[in-house]
Amino acid sequence: ALAQYIELVGASHALPFFEFVSFELQKEVLLRLSRETLADLVSQMSPDDRADLLDDMEDALQERILSLLIRAERQNIIKLINYDEDSAGGYMTTDYALIRFDDTVSAALEQLRLQAPKKETIYYIYVVDKALRLIGFVSLRELIMAPRYKLVRDVMSKSVISVRVNEDIEEVAKKMQHYDFLAIPVVSEDERLVGIITFDDIYDVIQEETAEDMYLLANLDADESLNSPVGRSVKMRAPWLLVNLCTALFVAYTVDLFSDSISQFVALAALMPIVAMLGGNAGNQSLTVVVRALALGEVPLRDNWRVLLKEAGVGFVNGMLIGGVMGAIAWAWYDNVWLGLIILVAMSVNLVVAGFFGSLIPVTLRKLKLDPALGSSILVTTATDVGGFLIFLGLATIFLQQLLGG
Amino acid sequence: ALAQYIELVGASHALPFFEFVSFELQKEVLLRLSRETLADLVSQMSPDDRADLLDDMEDALQERILSLLIRAERQNIIKLINYDEDSAGGYMTTDYALIRFDDTVSAALEQLRLQAPKKETIYYIYVVDKALRLIGFVSLRELIMAPRYKLVRDVMSKSVISVRVNEDIEEVAKKMQHYDFLAIPVVSEDERLVGIITFDDIYDVIQEETAEDMYLLANLDADESLNSPVGRSVKMRAPWLLVNLCTALFVAYTVDLFSDSISQFVALAALMPIVAMLGGNAGNQSLTVVVRALALGEVPLRDNWRVLLKEAGVGFVNGMLIGGVMGAIAWAWYDNVWLGLIILVAMSVNLVVAGFFGSLIPVTLRKLKLDPALGSSILVTTATDVGGFLIFLGLATIFLQQLLGG
Ligand SMILES: [Mg+2]
Ligand SMILES: [Mg+2]
Ligand SMILES: [Mg+2]
Ligand SMILES: [Mg+2]
Ligand SMILES: [Mg+2]
Ligand SMILES: [Mg+2]
Ligand SMILES: [Mg+2]
Ligand SMILES: [Mg+2]
Ligand SMILES: [Mg+2]
Ligand SMILES: [Mg+2]
Ligand SMILES: [Mg+2]
Ligand SMILES: [Mg+2]
Ligand SMILES: [Mg+2]
Repeated sequence: ALAQYIELVGASHALPFFEFVSFELQKEVLLRLSRETLADLVSQMSPDDRADLLDDMEDALQERILSLLIRAERQNIIKLINYDEDSAGGYMTTDYALIRFDDTVSAALEQLRLQAPKKETIYYIYVVDKALRLIGFVSLRELIMAPRYKLVRDVMSKSVISVRVNEDIEEVAKKMQHYDFLAIPVVSEDERLVGIITFDDIYDVIQEETAEDMYLLANLDADESLNSPVGRSVKMRAPWLLVNLCTALFVAYTVDLFSDSISQFVALAALMPIVAMLGGNAGNQSLTVVVRALALGEVPLRDNWRVLLKEAGVGFVNGMLIGGVMGAIAWAWYDNVWLGLIILVAMSVNLVVAGFFGSLIPVTLRKLKLDPALGSSILVTTATDVGGFLIFLGLATIFLQQLLGG
Repeated sequence: ALAQYIELVGASHALPFFEFVSFELQKEVLLRLSRETLADLVSQMSPDDRADLLDDMEDALQERILSLLIRAERQNIIKLINYDEDSAGGYMTTDYALIRFDDTVSAALEQLRLQAPKKETIYYIYVVDKALRLIGFVSLRELIMAPRYKLVRDVMSKSVISVRVNEDIEEVAKKMQHYDFLAIPVVSEDERLVGIITFDDIYDVIQEETAEDMYLLANLDADESLNSPVGRSVKMRAPWLLVNLCTALFVAYTVDLFSDSISQFVALAALMPIVAMLGGNAGNQSLTVVVRALALGEVPLRDNWRVLLKEAGVGFVNGMLIGGVMGAIAWAWYDNVWLGLIILVAMSVNLVVAGFFGSLIPVTLRKLKLDPALGSSILVTTATDVGGFLIFLGLATIFLQQLLGG
């Protein structure tokens, strides 16, 4: 239906609407268009969106579309497709406005008026020299305020903040967010302007990068979504569950060491999940705070120890609190003061373990140049499970006579 | 030092730098400035940032600064402070560019040139009638491209997408992200333009809202950061841990029901944490995928059941897989085929429980008009702990003779 509509109104009219719908729908529609409309539509799309769309297609369809486009455009698309999709190059558009540094402001404004229909933005304008090297920046606002007779080179600002074409898009987003930029220029290794990245893409990047951390903390692949078919979801989640199974075996082994104590005093089996569960929760609290702070660049490397101390401290206070409450409950429930004391100590220590490993693990992953959130929740819960059981069942074994005596 | 620098160069020169540093530093600096520089500096700040800053101050300092500002500005600040900080009003600025609908394009451009130095943006311009009701929108790009003699009313677009002043900023961000807007107009109940929200604030909102979900999933308060003092962190985390302690008591109670079986066959105590741990992990996978999808508005209410089915399905397949591996390990470890079978079934069923509750809980919270992520991970891990122990220890009790026979 959408394909028919596009044939009817023509590519130029349908473009804004077409660019608006989802990737999936776009691909479906492209398959149903006539050759001419297809060529027309694709050649009018903005270069970055077009490259993303083609990137996402089967090779056959991609070839078919590329063959319909004129040579120059084809080159441009192939170039954009070839940049890493998580790099500045993967997000930039080549539709940027250009003005000459030796033009007057009024000539530049006239230039922009002519370029306006075809450019991604005309609000931020980058100025290049003859070798296409980036030498200046001026906003349309400044240009409008400047006296008409002045030269661009005299109104432009000469220190331009730019990013490299292979820079991680996450770093690009951080810069744009930090400086409140509407767009940022992308330069090649030799300082030549190759594209710009605009705010609308950064909206998406900021969201995706934060969501990525959330996903990693839950041991999920960033590519998964609720719409992924069951088979794909299974395939993406299973490896993490298998990793967790391996660490869970350590936990089981720890408990197994204390079989004797448990069979003599079976209340230990009922209470031990409490120690583990609270430790896991507190550990994930620390982990999430630290992962977030690392993502925001709030933790200089030399502050690692301060982070560990803080989180361990929070764990200690909360451990005394929660352990105190639980100790009293255990005492009353089993009418056994020793049991109460042991669970109090075990929970306090385990919440320190939680704070310590909840911060040590992401900080260490960063030092190893890995993502601080990668697999971290499995490691943290393993630490709190092993730690909790070791302390709780260990203390219980040491004081077994007192426990059995009540 | 910064305060001295500001006194030296004067408020107007120091402003860009001042607006750039952190809230904490800003407040410190304000305390050290002379009356005149203080009044100068604060009156030149952009209204939205200023309102936020004052909002964050102790009342005494706030009063002192307000008293220094001229009456009109004071009214504006007080108005901005009074909007809910999570609403459109809390983020908007009143420094928007205005043009008259019966002006020509060339008069409008001249107007914008005059307004440019003082406005947050002149790239998106909203047109109002005499009662300040929003009636049109035109971008500077369109204005520059339009013939100079035309009237604004003939080049502006008459259907303007706007937000209400009390609308949740999260919804505002969604709209701006969806439409790729650089700014959006904010209107009062009676459709009058009261402010605009610009892209730079939306960068921050998108990040904060996604991070908020991540925090809620880890049972953290959105206001906490790594820089929060230990006492504050303790206070913000402890309530969640206490909630978790209550649910953990249910878990302990479940295990307690099977004390007899455990004391007769103590391997159950060693293996039960595996069932719980994998269930918790799988449950958090489902939970996170669903919370993310809900935040992105990807799940219409009528699709709730489809979500439950999908996640339960993923849980079943992964449960068979992980349960199969673990079943074989348990069989080999304890040389007991019954134990292997029981843990296989328990883990399969528990991963279905994980998928089911991992999606049921956020979907239900949404139906109750609560945040889908609120406390959800505690509920999910409680479900997988109770479920896992019930099935595992229940099966073990039923087949206790076979287990003991090997
Ligand atoms: Mg992409
Ligand atoms: Mg791309
Ligand atoms: Mg910013
Ligand atoms: Mg773009
Ligand atoms: Mg775009
Ligand atoms: Mg990334
Ligand atoms: Mg990241
Ligand atoms: Mg505010
Ligand atoms: Mg968008
Ligand atoms: Mg603003
Ligand atoms: Mg601002
Ligand atoms: Mg919110
Ligand atoms: Mg939210």
